Amino acid sequence: MPRTKGDHESRRRDVSEAVWHVMAARGFTGLTLRAVAAELGASTGLLTHYFPNKNALVEYALDLLEQRTAARPRREAGPGLASLRAALLDILPLTRAATDSNRIWVSSWGAALADPDLTDDYAGKYARSRANLSQRVAAAQELGELPQGDPDRIAAGAHAFILGLVVQALLDPAAFPTDHQTALLDDYLTALTTLADSRGETHRP
Amino acid sequence: MPRTKGDHESRRRDVSEAVWHVMAARGFTGLTLRAVAAELGASTGLLTHYFPNKNALVEYALDLLEQRTAARPRREAGPGLASLRAALLDILPLTRAATDSNRIWVSSWGAALADPDLTDDYAGKYARSRANLSQRVAAAQELGELPQGDPDRIAAGAHAFILGLVVQALLDPAAFPTDHQTALLDDYLTALTTLADSRGETHRP
Repeated sequence: MPRTKGDHESRRRDVSEAVWHVMAARGFTGLTLRAVAAELGASTGLLTHYFPNKNALVEYALDLLEQRTAARPRREAGPGLASLRAALLDILPLTRAATDSNRIWVSSWGAALADPDLTDDYAGKYARSRANLSQRVAAAQELGELPQGDPDRIAAGAHAFILGLVVQALLDPAAFPTDHQTALLDDYLTALTTLADSRGETHRP
Repeated sequence: MPRTKGDHESRRRDVSEAVWHVMAARGFTGLTLRAVAAELGASTGLLTHYFPNKNALVEYALDLLEQRTAARPRREAGPGLASLRAALLDILPLTRAATDSNRIWVSSWGAALADPDLTDDYAGKYARSRANLSQRVAAAQELGELPQGDPDRIAAGAHAFILGLVVQALLDPAAFPTDHQTALLDDYLTALTTLADSRGETHRP
Protein backbone atom coordinates (compact mmCIF):
# COMPACT_ATOMS: atom_id res chain seq x y z
CA MET A 1 0.00 0.00 0.00
CA PRO A 2 1.47 3.38 -0.96
CA ARG A 3 2.47 5.43 2.03
CA THR A 4 0.29 8.40 1.08
CA LYS A 5 -2.87 6.28 1.03
CA GLY A 6 -2.06 4.82 4.43
CA ASP A 7 -1.46 8.31 5.77
CA HIS A 8 -4.74 9.49 4.33
CA GLU A 9 -6.73 6.62 5.87
CA SER A 10 -5.01 6.99 9.17
CA ARG A 11 -5.83 10.72 9.13
CA ARG A 12 -9.47 9.94 8.34
CA ARG A 13 -9.61 7.61 11.34
CA ASP A 14 -8.09 10.35 13.48
CA VAL A 15 -10.72 12.81 12.29
CA SER A 16 -13.52 10.32 13.05
CA GLU A 17 -12.13 9.72 16.53
CA ALA A 18 -11.87 13.45 17.16
CA VAL A 19 -15.45 14.12 16.00
CA TRP A 20 -16.66 11.26 18.21
CA HIS A 21 -14.75 12.44 21.28
CA VAL A 22 -16.01 16.00 20.94
CA MET A 23 -19.61 14.79 20.68
CA ALA A 24 -19.29 12.32 23.55
CA ALA A 25 -17.79 15.02 25.78
CA ARG A 26 -19.85 18.07 24.79
CA GLY A 27 -22.85 16.54 23.11
CA PHE A 28 -24.02 17.11 19.60
CA THR A 29 -24.60 20.78 20.39
CA GLY A 30 -20.93 21.24 21.31
CA LEU A 31 -19.73 19.93 17.94
CA THR A 32 -17.86 22.71 16.13
CA LEU A 33 -15.00 22.78 13.61
CA ARG A 34 -12.93 24.61 16.22
CA ALA A 35 -13.52 21.93 18.88
CA VAL A 36 -12.65 19.10 16.47
CA ALA A 37 -9.50 20.96 15.38
CA ALA A 38 -8.47 21.42 19.03
CA GLU A 39 -9.08 17.71 19.74
CA LEU A 40 -6.88 16.82 16.74
CA GLY A 41 -4.23 19.37 17.67
CA ALA A 42 -4.67 20.71 14.14
CA SER A 43 -5.62 24.04 12.61
CA THR A 44 -9.21 24.86 11.67
CA GLY A 45 -7.78 25.40 8.17
CA LEU A 46 -6.72 21.75 7.90
CA LEU A 47 -10.23 20.65 8.87
CA THR A 48 -11.80 22.54 5.99
CA HIS A 49 -10.20 19.93 3.70
CA TYR A 50 -12.59 17.46 5.30
CA PHE A 51 -15.51 19.72 6.15
CA PRO A 52 -15.93 22.87 4.05
CA ASN A 53 -18.61 24.09 6.49
CA LYS A 54 -20.54 23.29 9.65
CA ASN A 55 -23.30 21.45 7.77
CA ALA A 56 -20.77 19.07 6.24
CA LEU A 57 -19.47 18.34 9.74
CA VAL A 58 -22.98 17.73 11.10
CA GLU A 59 -23.82 15.40 8.21
CA TYR A 60 -20.59 13.49 8.76
CA ALA A 61 -21.24 13.29 12.50
CA LEU A 62 -24.73 11.88 12.03
CA ASP A 63 -23.40 9.23 9.61
CA LEU A 64 -20.69 8.36 12.09
CA LEU A 65 -23.28 8.07 14.86
CA GLU A 66 -25.40 5.68 12.78
CA GLN A 67 -22.39 3.60 11.72
CA ARG A 68 -21.06 3.28 15.26
CA THR A 69 -24.49 2.48 16.64
CA ALA A 70 -24.99 -0.20 13.97
CA ALA A 71 -21.51 -1.62 14.62
CA ARG A 72 -21.98 -1.94 18.40
CA PRO A 73 -21.77 -5.56 19.54
CA ARG A 74 -25.22 -7.03 20.16
CA ARG A 75 -26.27 -9.47 22.85
CA GLU A 76 -27.02 -12.98 21.64
CA ALA A 77 -30.33 -14.33 22.86
CA GLY A 78 -32.90 -17.00 22.13
CA PRO A 79 -36.12 -16.18 20.29
CA GLY A 80 -39.17 -14.39 21.62
CA LEU A 81 -39.13 -12.47 24.86
CA ALA A 82 -35.43 -13.15 25.48
CA SER A 83 -34.62 -11.54 22.15
CA LEU A 84 -36.84 -8.53 22.90
CA ARG A 85 -35.09 -8.12 26.27
CA ALA A 86 -31.66 -8.38 24.62
CA ALA A 87 -32.53 -5.73 22.02
CA LEU A 88 -33.77 -3.37 24.75
CA LEU A 89 -30.67 -3.99 26.90
CA ASP A 90 -28.54 -3.19 23.84
CA ILE A 91 -30.10 0.28 23.76
CA LEU A 92 -29.50 1.17 27.43
CA PRO A 93 -26.34 3.04 28.51
CA LEU A 94 -24.91 0.01 30.35
CA THR A 95 -21.37 0.34 28.93
CA ARG A 96 -19.08 3.27 28.27
CA ALA A 97 -19.56 2.89 24.49
CA ALA A 98 -23.36 2.74 24.80
CA THR A 99 -23.29 5.74 27.15
CA ASP A 100 -21.21 7.84 24.71
CA SER A 101 -23.46 6.87 21.85
CA ASN A 102 -26.65 7.63 23.79
CA ARG A 103 -25.34 11.00 24.96
CA ILE A 104 -24.82 11.91 21.32
CA TRP A 105 -28.24 10.62 20.23
CA VAL A 106 -30.09 12.44 23.00
CA SER A 107 -28.19 15.68 22.42
CA SER A 108 -28.96 15.45 18.69
CA TRP A 109 -32.74 15.52 19.24
CA GLY A 110 -32.66 19.31 19.55
CA ALA A 111 -31.12 19.60 16.09
CA ALA A 112 -33.56 16.99 14.77
CA LEU A 113 -36.57 18.93 16.08
CA ALA A 114 -35.29 22.23 14.66
CA ASP A 115 -34.95 20.95 11.08
CA PRO A 116 -38.00 19.38 9.34
CA ASP A 117 -35.84 17.21 7.03
CA LEU A 118 -33.90 15.92 9.98
CA THR A 119 -37.13 15.35 11.92
CA ASP A 120 -38.29 13.12 9.03
CA ASP A 121 -34.97 11.26 9.06
CA TYR A 122 -35.30 10.62 12.78
CA ALA A 123 -38.94 9.57 12.45
CA GLY A 124 -37.75 7.02 9.87
CA LYS A 125 -34.92 5.78 12.08
CA TYR A 126 -37.19 5.27 15.08
CA ALA A 127 -39.90 3.65 12.95
CA ARG A 128 -37.26 1.09 11.88
CA SER A 129 -36.29 0.53 15.52
CA ARG A 130 -39.94 -0.07 16.41
CA ALA A 131 -40.35 -2.47 13.46
CA ASN A 132 -37.35 -4.41 14.73
CA LEU A 133 -38.85 -4.62 18.21
CA SER A 134 -42.25 -5.48 16.75
CA GLN A 135 -40.83 -8.61 15.06
CA ARG A 136 -39.47 -9.75 18.41
CA VAL A 137 -42.81 -9.02 20.10
CA ALA A 138 -44.63 -11.06 17.43
CA ALA A 139 -42.22 -13.95 17.99
CA ALA A 140 -42.85 -13.74 21.75
CA GLN A 141 -46.59 -13.80 21.05
CA GLU A 142 -46.14 -16.92 18.92
CA LEU A 143 -44.38 -18.52 21.86
CA GLY A 144 -47.21 -17.47 24.18
CA GLU A 145 -44.89 -15.23 26.19
CA LEU A 146 -46.72 -11.98 25.46
CA PRO A 147 -50.40 -11.05 25.12
CA GLN A 148 -52.10 -11.14 21.76
CA GLY A 149 -52.80 -7.73 20.27
CA ASP A 150 -51.07 -5.44 17.84
CA PRO A 151 -47.33 -6.15 18.08
CA ASP A 152 -46.57 -2.68 16.68
CA ARG A 153 -48.43 -1.14 19.58
CA ILE A 154 -46.63 -3.23 22.17
CA ALA A 155 -43.33 -2.39 20.45
CA ALA A 156 -44.15 1.34 20.52
CA GLY A 157 -44.74 1.09 24.27
CA ALA A 158 -41.50 -0.80 24.84
CA HIS A 159 -39.58 1.69 22.70
CA ALA A 160 -41.04 4.62 24.64
CA PHE A 161 -40.07 2.96 27.90
CA ILE A 162 -36.49 2.31 26.86
CA LEU A 163 -35.91 5.78 25.34
CA GLY A 164 -37.16 7.44 28.51
CA LEU A 165 -34.99 5.21 30.66
CA VAL A 166 -31.98 6.21 28.54
CA VAL A 167 -32.77 9.89 29.17
CA GLN A 168 -33.17 9.41 32.90
CA ALA A 169 -29.99 7.35 33.19
CA LEU A 170 -27.93 9.93 31.27
CA LEU A 171 -29.23 12.91 33.24
CA ASP A 172 -28.91 11.19 36.62
CA PRO A 173 -26.35 8.38 36.42
CA ALA A 174 -26.09 8.21 40.23
CA ALA A 175 -29.80 7.38 40.56
CA PHE A 176 -29.74 4.93 37.63
CA PRO A 177 -26.73 2.62 37.96
CA THR A 178 -26.64 -0.24 35.47
CA ASP A 179 -28.28 -2.81 37.75
CA HIS A 180 -31.17 -0.42 38.46
CA GLN A 181 -31.69 0.19 34.73
CA THR A 182 -31.82 -3.57 34.15
CA ALA A 183 -34.19 -4.08 37.10
CA LEU A 184 -36.56 -1.39 35.78
CA LEU A 185 -36.55 -3.00 32.33
CA ASP A 186 -37.33 -6.37 33.91
CA ASP A 187 -40.19 -4.80 35.90
CA TYR A 188 -41.56 -3.50 32.61
CA LEU A 189 -41.26 -6.86 30.85
CA THR A 190 -42.80 -8.68 33.82
CA ALA A 191 -45.80 -6.35 33.68
CA LEU A 192 -46.21 -7.12 29.96
CA THR A 193 -45.93 -10.87 30.55
CA THR A 194 -48.27 -10.91 33.50
CA LEU A 195 -50.80 -9.05 31.43
CA ALA A 196 -50.63 -12.01 29.05
CA ASP A 197 -51.21 -14.50 31.87
CA SER A 198 -54.09 -12.68 33.49
CA ARG A 199 -55.91 -12.13 30.22
CA GLY A 200 -55.77 -15.89 29.68
CA GLU A 201 -54.73 -15.24 26.12
CA THR A 202 -51.45 -17.12 26.17
CA HIS A 203 -51.15 -20.30 24.21
CA ARG A 204 -48.23 -22.60 24.65
CA PRO A 205 -47.38 -24.41 21.45
CA MET B 1 -49.32 53.32 37.21
CA PRO B 2 -46.66 55.55 35.61
CA ARG B 3 -46.53 55.09 31.91
CA THR B 4 -42.83 54.18 31.88
CA LYS B 5 -43.39 51.29 34.27
CA GLY B 6 -46.24 49.97 32.14
CA ASP B 7 -44.06 50.24 29.07
CA HIS B 8 -41.28 48.41 30.81
CA GLU B 9 -43.53 45.54 31.93
CA SER B 10 -45.16 45.31 28.55
CA ARG B 11 -41.71 45.16 26.95
CA ARG B 12 -40.66 42.40 29.37
CA ARG B 13 -43.73 40.39 28.38
CA ASP B 14 -42.84 40.93 24.71
CA VAL B 15 -39.31 39.69 25.34
CA SER B 16 -40.61 36.60 27.15
CA GLU B 17 -42.98 35.84 24.29
CA ALA B 18 -40.20 36.27 21.74
CA VAL B 19 -37.81 33.97 23.66
CA TRP B 20 -40.58 31.41 23.96
CA HIS B 21 -41.51 31.54 20.27
CA VAL B 22 -37.91 31.19 19.14
CA MET B 23 -37.43 28.15 21.36
CA ALA B 24 -40.72 26.54 20.35
CA ALA B 25 -39.89 27.00 16.66
CA ARG B 26 -36.16 26.26 16.63
CA GLY B 27 -35.65 24.42 19.85
CA PHE B 28 -33.38 25.35 22.66
CA THR B 29 -30.36 24.98 20.37
CA GLY B 30 -31.76 27.64 18.02
CA LEU B 31 -32.03 30.22 20.80
CA THR B 32 -29.71 33.15 20.01
CA LEU B 33 -29.78 36.88 20.78
CA ARG B 34 -30.02 37.51 17.05
CA ALA B 35 -33.08 35.23 16.65
CA VAL B 36 -34.87 36.82 19.62
CA ALA B 37 -34.11 40.30 18.26
CA ALA B 38 -35.52 39.31 14.85
CA GLU B 39 -38.66 37.88 16.49
CA LEU B 40 -39.10 41.18 18.38
CA GLY B 41 -38.35 43.28 15.32
CA ALA B 42 -35.69 44.97 17.47
CA SER B 43 -31.95 45.43 17.25
CA THR B 44 -29.53 43.04 18.93
CA GLY B 45 -28.28 46.14 20.73
CA LEU B 46 -31.62 46.66 22.44
CA LEU B 47 -31.59 43.05 23.64
CA THR B 48 -28.29 43.52 25.45
CA HIS B 49 -30.22 45.68 27.95
CA TYR B 50 -32.01 42.49 28.93
CA PHE B 51 -29.32 39.92 28.25
CA PRO B 52 -25.71 41.11 28.37
CA ASN B 53 -24.59 37.76 26.90
CA LYS B 54 -25.73 34.36 25.67
CA ASN B 55 -25.48 32.78 29.13
CA ALA B 56 -27.88 35.37 30.55
CA LEU B 57 -30.32 34.51 27.76
CA VAL B 58 -30.01 30.76 28.41
CA GLU B 59 -30.53 31.24 32.15
CA TYR B 60 -33.59 33.39 31.48
CA ALA B 61 -34.95 30.85 28.99
CA LEU B 62 -34.61 27.96 31.44
CA ASP B 63 -36.41 29.95 34.15
CA LEU B 64 -39.14 30.81 31.67
CA LEU B 65 -39.45 27.14 30.71
CA GLU B 66 -39.85 26.11 34.35
CA GLN B 67 -42.35 28.88 35.09
CA ARG B 68 -44.49 28.10 32.07
CA THR B 69 -44.37 24.39 32.75
CA ALA B 70 -45.39 24.97 36.37
CA ALA B 71 -48.17 27.34 35.28
CA ARG B 72 -49.72 24.93 32.76
CA PRO B 73 -53.27 23.97 33.71
CA ARG B 74 -53.41 20.52 35.32
CA ARG B 75 -56.07 17.88 34.97
CA GLU B 76 -58.26 17.36 38.01
CA ALA B 77 -58.63 13.74 39.01
CA GLY B 78 -59.60 11.58 41.95
CA PRO B 79 -56.98 9.95 44.16
CA GLY B 80 -54.81 6.93 43.39
CA LEU B 81 -54.44 5.57 39.89
CA ALA B 82 -56.67 8.28 38.37
CA SER B 83 -54.35 10.93 39.77
CA LEU B 84 -51.25 9.11 38.48
CA ARG B 85 -52.86 8.88 35.02
CA ALA B 86 -53.78 12.58 35.10
CA ALA B 87 -50.22 13.60 36.03
CA LEU B 88 -48.81 11.48 33.18
CA LEU B 89 -51.36 12.87 30.70
CA ASP B 90 -50.32 16.39 31.78
CA ILE B 91 -46.77 15.62 30.63
CA LEU B 92 -47.67 14.34 27.14
CA PRO B 93 -47.73 16.71 24.12
CA LEU B 94 -51.52 16.51 23.76
CA THR B 95 -52.06 20.27 23.31
CA ARG B 96 -50.21 22.97 21.43
CA ALA B 97 -48.90 24.48 24.67
CA ALA B 98 -47.69 21.11 25.95
CA THR B 99 -46.10 20.38 22.58
CA ASP B 100 -44.19 23.70 22.55
CA SER B 101 -43.07 23.18 26.10
CA ASN B 102 -41.94 19.59 25.44
CA ARG B 103 -40.06 20.59 22.29
CA ILE B 104 -38.09 23.04 24.38
CA TRP B 105 -37.46 20.56 27.20
CA VAL B 106 -36.26 17.81 24.85
CA SER B 107 -34.07 20.19 22.88
CA SER B 108 -32.53 21.47 26.13
CA TRP B 109 -31.23 18.01 27.12
CA GLY B 110 -28.20 18.47 24.87
CA ALA B 111 -27.21 21.61 26.77
CA ALA B 112 -27.97 19.86 30.07
CA LEU B 113 -25.69 16.93 29.20
CA ALA B 114 -22.87 19.24 28.07
CA ASP B 115 -22.70 21.19 31.34
CA PRO B 116 -22.18 19.32 34.64
CA ASP B 117 -23.93 22.02 36.72
CA LEU B 118 -26.90 21.93 34.41
CA THR B 119 -26.89 18.11 34.47
CA ASP B 120 -27.21 18.32 38.27
CA ASP B 121 -30.06 20.82 37.95
CA TYR B 122 -31.89 18.52 35.59
CA ALA B 123 -31.25 15.48 37.76
CA GLY B 124 -32.86 17.44 40.62
CA LYS B 125 -35.84 18.49 38.50
CA TYR B 126 -36.53 14.94 37.36
CA ALA B 127 -36.04 13.53 40.85
CA ARG B 128 -38.79 15.93 42.02
CA SER B 129 -41.03 14.76 39.16
CA ARG B 130 -40.46 11.15 40.17
CA ALA B 131 -41.19 11.99 43.82
CA ASN B 132 -44.47 13.58 42.74
CA LEU B 133 -45.40 10.45 40.76
CA SER B 134 -44.26 8.22 43.63
CA GLN B 135 -46.78 9.83 46.01
CA ARG B 136 -49.53 9.06 43.55
CA VAL B 137 -48.30 5.49 43.15
CA ALA B 138 -48.29 5.05 46.93
CA ALA B 139 -51.87 6.36 47.09
CA ALA B 140 -52.88 3.90 44.36
CA GLN B 141 -51.24 1.11 46.34
CA GLU B 142 -53.21 2.14 49.44
CA LEU B 143 -56.35 1.85 47.35
CA GLY B 144 -55.28 -1.58 46.11
CA GLU B 145 -55.04 -0.36 42.53
CA LEU B 146 -51.34 -1.03 42.09
CA PRO B 147 -49.03 -3.80 43.29
CA GLN B 148 -47.15 -3.49 46.54
CA GLY B 149 -43.47 -2.81 46.17
CA ASP B 150 -41.26 0.26 46.17
CA PRO B 151 -43.38 3.18 44.90
CA ASP B 152 -40.22 5.05 43.87
CA ARG B 153 -39.31 2.19 41.59
CA ILE B 154 -42.76 2.05 39.99
CA ALA B 155 -42.67 5.85 39.60
CA ALA B 156 -39.25 5.66 37.92
CA GLY B 157 -40.65 3.16 35.41
CA ALA B 158 -43.71 5.31 34.72
CA HIS B 159 -41.56 8.40 34.32
CA ALA B 160 -39.26 6.60 31.88
CA PHE B 161 -42.28 5.48 29.88
CA ILE B 162 -43.80 8.93 29.65
CA LEU B 163 -40.54 10.74 28.77
CA GLY B 164 -39.86 8.25 25.97
CA LEU B 165 -43.40 8.63 24.68
CA VAL B 166 -42.91 12.42 24.60
CA VAL B 167 -39.74 11.97 22.52
CA GLN B 168 -41.43 9.62 20.07
CA ALA B 169 -44.49 11.84 19.70
CA LEU B 170 -42.38 14.94 19.04
CA LEU B 171 -40.13 13.26 16.48
CA ASP B 172 -43.00 11.51 14.68
CA PRO B 173 -46.28 13.36 15.31
CA ALA B 174 -47.97 11.55 12.40
CA ALA B 175 -47.36 8.15 14.00
CA PHE B 176 -48.31 9.37 17.49
CA PRO B 177 -51.54 11.38 17.30
CA THR B 178 -53.02 12.33 20.66
CA ASP B 179 -55.43 9.38 20.90
CA HIS B 180 -52.58 6.95 20.21
CA GLN B 181 -50.44 8.54 22.93
CA THR B 182 -53.32 8.18 25.38
CA ALA B 183 -53.96 4.57 24.31
CA LEU B 184 -50.29 3.67 24.81
CA LEU B 185 -50.33 5.23 28.27
CA ASP B 186 -53.46 3.26 29.14
CA ASP B 187 -51.81 0.05 27.90
CA TYR B 188 -48.93 0.82 30.24
CA LEU B 189 -51.18 1.48 33.23
CA THR B 190 -53.26 -1.63 32.50
CA ALA B 191 -50.10 -3.72 32.52
CA LEU B 192 -49.16 -2.25 35.92
CA THR B 193 -52.63 -2.88 37.33
CA THR B 194 -52.90 -6.38 35.97
CA LEU B 195 -49.55 -7.17 37.52
CA ALA B 196 -51.17 -6.29 40.84
CA ASP B 197 -54.13 -8.58 40.19
CA SER B 198 -52.15 -11.57 39.06
CA ARG B 199 -49.71 -11.33 41.95
CA GLY B 200 -52.67 -11.49 44.28
CA GLU B 201 -51.14 -8.65 46.23
CA THR B 202 -54.00 -6.22 45.96
CA HIS B 203 -55.99 -5.45 49.01
CA ARG B 204 -59.25 -3.58 48.82
CA PRO B 205 -59.84 -1.45 51.88
